[in-house]
Amino acid sequence: MTETELKKRMANAIRALAMDAVEKAKSGHPGMPMGMADVATVLFTRFVKYDVHAPHWPDRDRFILSAGHGSMLLYSVLNLLGSDVVSMEEIQRFRQLHSKTPGHPENFDTIGVETTTGPLGQGLAMSVGFALAERMLAAEFGNDIVDHHTYVIAGDGCLMEGVSHEAIDLAGHLKLNKLIVLWDDNRITIDGHTDLATSIDQVARFKASGWNAEHVDGFDQEAVAAAIERARKSDKPSMIACRTIIGYGAPTKADSHASHGSALGATEIAGAREKLGWPYAPFEIPEDVAGGWHEAGRQWVGAREAWEKRLAALDHDKKAEFKRRFDRILPGNFEAAMEAYKRGLSDSKPKVASRKSSEMALDMLATVVPELVGGSADLTGSNLTRGKSQQPLTPDDYSGRYIHYGIREFGMSAAMNGIALHGGFLPYGGTFLVFSDYARPAIRLSALMRAHVVYVMTHDSIGLGEDGPTHQPVEHLAALRAIPNLLVFRPADAVEVAEAWQIALESTNHPSLLALSRQNLPTLRVEHSVVNKTAKGAYLIDGPAKADVTIFATGSEVAIAVDAKAKIEAAGRTARIVSVPCFELFEQQDEAYKAETIGDSPVKVAIEAAIRQGWDRFIGTDGIFIGMSTFGASAPIEALYPYFGITADAAADAALAKLTSNV
Amino acid sequence: MTETELKKRMANAIRALAMDAVEKAKSGHPGMPMGMADVATVLFTRFVKYDVHAPHWPDRDRFILSAGHGSMLLYSVLNLLGSDVVSMEEIQRFRQLHSKTPGHPENFDTIGVETTTGPLGQGLAMSVGFALAERMLAAEFGNDIVDHHTYVIAGDGCLMEGVSHEAIDLAGHLKLNKLIVLWDDNRITIDGHTDLATSIDQVARFKASGWNAEHVDGFDQEAVAAAIERARKSDKPSMIACRTIIGYGAPTKADSHASHGSALGATEIAGAREKLGWPYAPFEIPEDVAGGWHEAGRQWVGAREAWEKRLAALDHDKKAEFKRRFDRILPGNFEAAMEAYKRGLSDSKPKVASRKSSEMALDMLATVVPELVGGSADLTGSNLTRGKSQQPLTPDDYSGRYIHYGIREFGMSAAMNGIALHGGFLPYGGTFLVFSDYARPAIRLSALMRAHVVYVMTHDSIGLGEDGPTHQPVEHLAALRAIPNLLVFRPADAVEVAEAWQIALESTNHPSLLALSRQNLPTLRVEHSVVNKTAKGAYLIDGPAKADVTIFATGSEVAIAVDAKAKIEAAGRTARIVSVPCFELFEQQDEAYKAETIGDSPVKVAIEAAIRQGWDRFIGTDGIFIGMSTFGASAPIEALYPYFGITADAAADAALAKLTSNV
Repeated sequence: MTETELKKRMANAIRALAMDAVEKAKSGHPGMPMGMADVATVLFTRFVKYDVHAPHWPDRDRFILSAGHGSMLLYSVLNLLGSDVVSMEEIQRFRQLHSKTPGHPENFDTIGVETTTGPLGQGLAMSVGFALAERMLAAEFGNDIVDHHTYVIAGDGCLMEGVSHEAIDLAGHLKLNKLIVLWDDNRITIDGHTDLATSIDQVARFKASGWNAEHVDGFDQEAVAAAIERARKSDKPSMIACRTIIGYGAPTKADSHASHGSALGATEIAGAREKLGWPYAPFEIPEDVAGGWHEAGRQWVGAREAWEKRLAALDHDKKAEFKRRFDRILPGNFEAAMEAYKRGLSDSKPKVASRKSSEMALDMLATVVPELVGGSADLTGSNLTRGKSQQPLTPDDYSGRYIHYGIREFGMSAAMNGIALHGGFLPYGGTFLVFSDYARPAIRLSALMRAHVVYVMTHDSIGLGEDGPTHQPVEHLAALRAIPNLLVFRPADAVEVAEAWQIALESTNHPSLLALSRQNLPTLRVEHSVVNKTAKGAYLIDGPAKADVTIFATGSEVAIAVDAKAKIEAAGRTARIVSVPCFELFEQQDEAYKAETIGDSPVKVAIEAAIRQGWDRFIGTDGIFIGMSTFGASAPIEALYPYFGITADAAADAALAKLTSNV
Repeated sequence: MTETELKKRMANAIRALAMDAVEKAKSGHPGMPMGMADVATVLFTRFVKYDVHAPHWPDRDRFILSAGHGSMLLYSVLNLLGSDVVSMEEIQRFRQLHSKTPGHPENFDTIGVETTTGPLGQGLAMSVGFALAERMLAAEFGNDIVDHHTYVIAGDGCLMEGVSHEAIDLAGHLKLNKLIVLWDDNRITIDGHTDLATSIDQVARFKASGWNAEHVDGFDQEAVAAAIERARKSDKPSMIACRTIIGYGAPTKADSHASHGSALGATEIAGAREKLGWPYAPFEIPEDVAGGWHEAGRQWVGAREAWEKRLAALDHDKKAEFKRRFDRILPGNFEAAMEAYKRGLSDSKPKVASRKSSEMALDMLATVVPELVGGSADLTGSNLTRGKSQQPLTPDDYSGRYIHYGIREFGMSAAMNGIALHGGFLPYGGTFLVFSDYARPAIRLSALMRAHVVYVMTHDSIGLGEDGPTHQPVEHLAALRAIPNLLVFRPADAVEVAEAWQIALESTNHPSLLALSRQNLPTLRVEHSVVNKTAKGAYLIDGPAKADVTIFATGSEVAIAVDAKAKIEAAGRTARIVSVPCFELFEQQDEAYKAETIGDSPVKVAIEAAIRQGWDRFIGTDGIFIGMSTFGASAPIEALYPYFGITADAAADAALAKLTSNV
């Protein structure tokens, strides 16, 4: 058998595993793996620098299956390369509870899967972050230590989704020439032929965005390899449009959406076996094919060992720093620096917007935590996300640690996920809180993947004023708190901002989101506390342990609560204030702490310039809520808070009236 | 003075009003109106068919300010044309509470504003819906009655946002040649020069998407006019890149982000007045300029009157239908058809997925309600959104009433907003519930604008099974219920699905969203009810008025509640079940109904395969919640519900245990 014939058979192994696993599960997507099997074979036998037994090797190439529904392509390749995790048993447990082969690739479940994909376009958008992390890391540690490619397989859905535009515009601008995207140009989507919904010239589109782009026959392995070689030599990112046939090999369902998203059925599979010349039993891999794949799986051992020698030859500090960064351990002086900074705040008592105190924290953090990579979706001067020491990253200089992401909230967030998953960096990025909606699909993936990223969302309420309801978040705090695993902070003053940043940086297992004010806020935590009180999620910030009224508040409304408390006391009643910077962390406390913090005041009030949803947890269904129930309005802040009834008077009056009526 | 000189002065009037209004408000965005004033003058003095005293004329051209922060451009033009609403007093009340001139244009506040913009990219994306509605309506009523253009001014932000890709790909594919986009190519964004973040060739990009595209000097009114003339003759949509200078006229802040988003200041404004040759007081418009604009404002009166004659000449039925459609009144036979359909369901008691019973409803509705325009973001066979009688809309045939939107959830939703705002149609569109995240910015705008659109979101829980956590909504019901004005329905059976569709079609003042199951559900409403019970938001669906246990549930979990009730009764206790198809409608009921429906059972249980947030309203903070607290998992539905503890046994056991402990 010639090498070419063997490679074809190796591709057919992917096709067979894909159709057999989907058939066994009676669920899944055989069409894409069958169409792209040759491309995958070329990639993994010739290009993707990946030692299957050292899957965490920092300098490995990253492979991202943006068309995540084709998960069986990735599982098949991992299995054939010799993965310890994706065994043939796991292939046979495709899409079953607790298998390593879930319906869509999940990086948190399966070693060898670089990122979670399925929500279309996001794999491609994350790949920009992966490729950027590689360049940034190389700028810091040198090309001897960091020199790898990011390969992506993307489908029609990925390229139709809007986020693809944000991603390719950014990647083209940043000249990420080690990013190579292979587009499965099969001209079929779920509804039918792509000409039902698109007429775009993708190659021209990518070229317009500063990419290298070309067409190739996706079944001609030599042509695919030659295109990849050209891409690797380009000074631009590359897109290779691989013309394929979905469900290739299936006698009646190939080239049809019928092969996209369901099991082919026994007859069709038998026909495909015949057509492909694959007489083997389900899940059986013949020896020659297994041998070819195992050889591919071993081909990078030498390269990895050479790399390890190069790493070992680095000077001690640099080596330690590289290791620290990939171990995701903060610098040794982080805690002390944080403590000193926090102490300074309690002393100086700044009255600044929380976006401003976030900037103050970042000025310090950017000098202490070199893995921090900041950015904003074109709102740097509003989000105040750039630390003084941070220089802009440019296409000509990847040593900058501040990224002008452009007006691309979703693309930014997906890129941050990619940067975080790549390793070596801790990305944060800003936009207005209301535009968390634009970024939401990526925020959800951050949470699902437990990616260590920090969202800096400013202008967090009607307090932003004149820009009006299109820019005023009302439902966003509730909607973000709804996402599992995401830490949503709404700090009340500069100290809570510092504490929130500390938690965000220490939480390697959670993404965090800081909701910050446009308007100035007084420092309430005027006595320094070594303990990070924000870490409790909610805590008594002012007043006695027991009182007639407990007022719960967050962010800019805690200062309103302080005024309300004074009014309640002036009326001869007692009040206590609980600051609630993070609902999620509060729920993680023990029952005794939670009960004590919520307390047993006969009247409970919550103040938040947002909707009530979620607050019954603190105030009960009969509690008083001072906040929003509609969209906001365009007017100065001084007019808006009274108009919507979010005032200390309103809170105090309602509490006092209820106290009286209770009696 | 020559005509050319007058037109230049007319443009300067826009510049002056923009800088003066922003200065008075000490807030706003003068840069864009000052840069695009000449383009706006060309548009409104020569092209935009708009009778300012008949702002609802159905055949008017639609002008969409996608770069909504430049609202003063639109307000200035409306004022200068002679708007009754945007008076000079309102211009002087720019960005003040209850003014007609809010920070960003709000169609629900200001007659003459076609749509709400500000969230970038969405104006452009909605314009595709406007332009499509025009073509669809022309296909139905003829070009004599419907023949107008959609003009858009878009900024760099609009074209960087991902949704712009979805919009232009769709518009190019559909050959919407009466859509003309003028891009404010000023090369400045908030962070600085556009070359900080983008290197795209926009003209090449639009051409790749099937558009006509060219560059023009945005200060050369004749060149702009000639480009628009060419665009109007094209058989493709057109993008005209207008090279401008942001803040044109401002002596030191022009061509800089300093003129983008804040008042210029007295000195700078004085300098601009001198530079522009505009010696007039703030808000003063000299007679020649006022005269020129008023003439522009009157130029379409004749065209409108001629159109009214053509409409009057239509045959009676067609005329009545046209009027009905623009009055947003459902057909006379709608209610009877709905009633008959619902009665049939209670008789036939189908056991089908709610996505399937939605399709059954659509099969009927598509024949009764001709303004319905369906579609899906490439999930037609999964969302089951195509009524039997609906033919696909194609670039060659706009009479189709089913749109293959492509894999573009956000673009679809924005287009639906545009279609709804245009008038004449009632759009609905489908995707998976989890991908409501992708569409969320448009869903929010639907709610803010009170656009009459219907979102059909299927695969509404872990019940979708094997596709896993990337595809399983968990937090989405809570996150969607958080949006003001949006009616979120999760119907329990075919009858509730029918009722939800009825409300959705009748609610001209609310967008609606239907969350529908993938799995089969029994018909629970087996006795026909003339009353639409779903309209109450929550109602007793099974059991006595008073009972030991009340179980609240929605959608697929109501059937689980029925089983739990049986188990509770088997243990000698009583139970009642409240179906809660729509939280928002429940809150609109009177207090007595709400109290009676929630009831006073000592034990309250809620079952929903989603997070608890929002449910305390029904069950109290000490109620039993059977649902999700984490992301889902990839496995067959039969494994997932037990794994996550969402079973009748779990509900019944928890309720019985609590009843016992209470005693």
